Amino acid sequence: MNIDAAKAALAHLELDDNPASIRSKSRDFFWYSPVLKARLDHVVADFVVSPRDEAEVIEVLKTCYAHDVPVTVRGAGTGNYGQAMPLAGGCVMHLKNMNRIREIAPGRVVAEPGIVIRDLDAQTKAQSGQELRMMPSTAATATLGGFIAGGSGGVGSVRWGALRDLGNIIRLRVVSMEAEPQIHEFTGEELHRVSHAYGTNGIITEIEMPLAPAYDWVSTVLTFPDFAEAARFGAELAAEDGILVKLITVCEAPIAAQYFQRFKGHVSEGDNTLQLMVAPQSMPALETFLARWPAGKMIFRSDAHDWSRDPGVAYEYGWNHTTLRALKVDPDITYLQVRYHGADFLEVIEAVRARFGAELMQHLEVMREHGQVIYAGLTMVRFTTEERLEEIVREHEEMGAMIFNPHRYTLEEGGRQSADARQLAFKREADPKGLLNPGKMIAWDVPDWGYERIYAYAGMRAAE
Amino acid sequence: MNIDAAKAALAHLELDDNPASIRSKSRDFFWYSPVLKARLDHVVADFVVSPRDEAEVIEVLKTCYAHDVPVTVRGAGTGNYGQAMPLAGGCVMHLKNMNRIREIAPGRVVAEPGIVIRDLDAQTKAQSGQELRMMPSTAATATLGGFIAGGSGGVGSVRWGALRDLGNIIRLRVVSMEAEPQIHEFTGEELHRVSHAYGTNGIITEIEMPLAPAYDWVSTVLTFPDFAEAARFGAELAAEDGILVKLITVCEAPIAAQYFQRFKGHVSEGDNTLQLMVAPQSMPALETFLARWPAGKMIFRSDAHDWSRDPGVAYEYGWNHTTLRALKVDPDITYLQVRYHGADFLEVIEAVRARFGAELMQHLEVMREHGQVIYAGLTMVRFTTEERLEEIVREHEEMGAMIFNPHRYTLEEGGRQSADARQLAFKREADPKGLLNPGKMIAWDVPDWGYERIYAYAGMRAAE
Repeated sequence: MNIDAAKAALAHLELDDNPASIRSKSRDFFWYSPVLKARLDHVVADFVVSPRDEAEVIEVLKTCYAHDVPVTVRGAGTGNYGQAMPLAGGCVMHLKNMNRIREIAPGRVVAEPGIVIRDLDAQTKAQSGQELRMMPSTAATATLGGFIAGGSGGVGSVRWGALRDLGNIIRLRVVSMEAEPQIHEFTGEELHRVSHAYGTNGIITEIEMPLAPAYDWVSTVLTFPDFAEAARFGAELAAEDGILVKLITVCEAPIAAQYFQRFKGHVSEGDNTLQLMVAPQSMPALETFLARWPAGKMIFRSDAHDWSRDPGVAYEYGWNHTTLRALKVDPDITYLQVRYHGADFLEVIEAVRARFGAELMQHLEVMREHGQVIYAGLTMVRFTTEERLEEIVREHEEMGAMIFNPHRYTLEEGGRQSADARQLAFKREADPKGLLNPGKMIAWDVPDWGYERIYAYAGMRAAE
Repeated sequence: MNIDAAKAALAHLELDDNPASIRSKSRDFFWYSPVLKARLDHVVADFVVSPRDEAEVIEVLKTCYAHDVPVTVRGAGTGNYGQAMPLAGGCVMHLKNMNRIREIAPGRVVAEPGIVIRDLDAQTKAQSGQELRMMPSTAATATLGGFIAGGSGGVGSVRWGALRDLGNIIRLRVVSMEAEPQIHEFTGEELHRVSHAYGTNGIITEIEMPLAPAYDWVSTVLTFPDFAEAARFGAELAAEDGILVKLITVCEAPIAAQYFQRFKGHVSEGDNTLQLMVAPQSMPALETFLARWPAGKMIFRSDAHDWSRDPGVAYEYGWNHTTLRALKVDPDITYLQVRYHGADFLEVIEAVRARFGAELMQHLEVMREHGQVIYAGLTMVRFTTEERLEEIVREHEEMGAMIFNPHRYTLEEGGRQSADARQLAFKREADPKGLLNPGKMIAWDVPDWGYERIYAYAGMRAAE
């Protein structure tokens, strides 16, 4: 690894070697996890480069390849798993300058990866009345490329499923890290090689995404005294094919009362809440549906309310923004990512609640999975020890709830605990020296890893 | 019934008393059914009036009320159950002149009932890039009001469910038939009073409907050598949340070869076909999905084909247009309306095929029902006798397939064979003399009807 030579060769690009700035750009939202916080807090790159176009991306990759410098790509760094953290140091490639929209068409947009999702949506809405099908709750700062490389779904998944589902990404243009970097255009089955691969096997330089209509979504808050009923309401609302929603979030009491500052005075400690995004034309149908649930109350709708402080958009009370709000109030909160599926998913959720009591607080998000309504859980956990957290994970799995562990920095451990053959095969082709985001793909480092314990990347640079 | 007095009082309106014209405007597509053909072929009104606005509708209703003249409302007459046929004679109220659009907004349109659906969609598309969520396959001639009063779903139901589902109709304005006709505005639960009520309890004069994006849908035809695989493909395609489709029609061999004239030379007698409408931005994903099914072939796509004769839009090979094409070739074909739902719906379909062999040809349409993918069957039947047709219906029901019998002219027999209390209650209020479309609501005529045999309306005017 010849850092100085690489920096010298790249000096004509936008290069950042201010230590404070490098440290900040070497971090993402890994600190959501006390487990990752303990392991990654010291991680820091040697320099940051921000290419302005694909040609500069190629130049960075070619230069770093020549000098054996690891390259970890990042957008806004809103991922929670250390996806964008340079475990072995080296170069952080920041894509903030690559933020152009190339084409807006009915149902489609072509853009560069560094564009902030809210900016993208604002432009597609202004020009065509359209927006992305789905976005993370961090859309105000997150980039499109970061969402595709490091995310899996979010606001909009209630209707469109996950990013990995066919049709939710149309095309990705990708540059490899070789002596002579190659450009690939991926569609169809090939998309899985690089989507949700954390930039371990190529750098995405252009993205074609489907668009959906951009309605003036009404942010709505409902309360239910009983959590199980709130969860049933959310699932049944999602099954109302004629009611167009973009978000159905369910939060167990006392999440809203304790962590949603602007809900104060409007919710009590006993209120379970739903945060919804509803198309304006579906609001009358939502009201009709809600009237069938005598225990449910609509306490807020953004198109007609008398709250003295506007709480803001519902999606910033959903997905990982919910966790973020809790963390701001109570730093001992962490979370799990659970998938409740199968015919009895509501019963499994109730069984989990009964088993753990106040140690957990349920936070559910409706998703579509293969045409079915399911719940993703972003369960809040009152953290005590890593051992106890592991125990909670195991017990969920024993109860039939699948865990995608957010306390791991590798692709495999955060996913299904198995190597992704397509990603690995493409890494062999596109990153022969293994310099792209090292330490994130176990299959590359330790092909026979057994997942009995948390993976510790041997190449991680030690704290100074 | 004082026909002459009513005609005289209404002479300043657009009144039609040409016998040939009256006879033609007293009919709909009831002749799809040999059972209805035998019973309703002679049905004819005394005169036809075509009001130009709501005030004239009110005048017609008030006048006919005063003179005890039955009023049967109609649009284009594309219904198949005699919905728009004046069993007791009297007045046919034709709404063709009430075809204005009042408002187009994001996600919504307000229109009069007599507008032809294709015209409505053309205007909303031109002005706002939007169209109705769903339409009948007869959209080129059918009216919006007729669809709502006499239909239940169709093209678009694969995504949005049925018309009766919450959110698929926003508001209906309705005029009653009393000494002083009243105007009602219905939303929410109240919509069910008059939607799919055949105009038996009020005349719809204004309609507010949700809109969806109007893409340049790609009409696509696939073939599969095996029917069960074609049916499985259709259901699994519908479960791909990221692939935006508006129509998934499955036709058993040899429907396409025998009845779809423009498919000649492109399909064989053994080809089972799927006709699809796919959003352009979802075509790459459809191709990717199809490639997972080695037996499936795409033989036509409207955006790139070399067929010498364009077969036209896919939706005119779906829903009841499929039946229509068969009837044109083989007048002995009739059909059933089946609902295959439940976890084992594909098995039930196979069991039905095994039971009936060549007597039936399966024609399936994907729908959403309470968030689930199900198949509606518009099964083609090689008709022999009414008795045999009844037997086929019974056997379907015994096998777990629900039948909505299209060989009946009453609301109840075409539906769930039970009175609709909301429709009946509103008829008591809005049509105290029972003059609106008489003979179509059994609950009004014979409250304790047992459904053992086909209902025969006692007030039906005899053939001359």
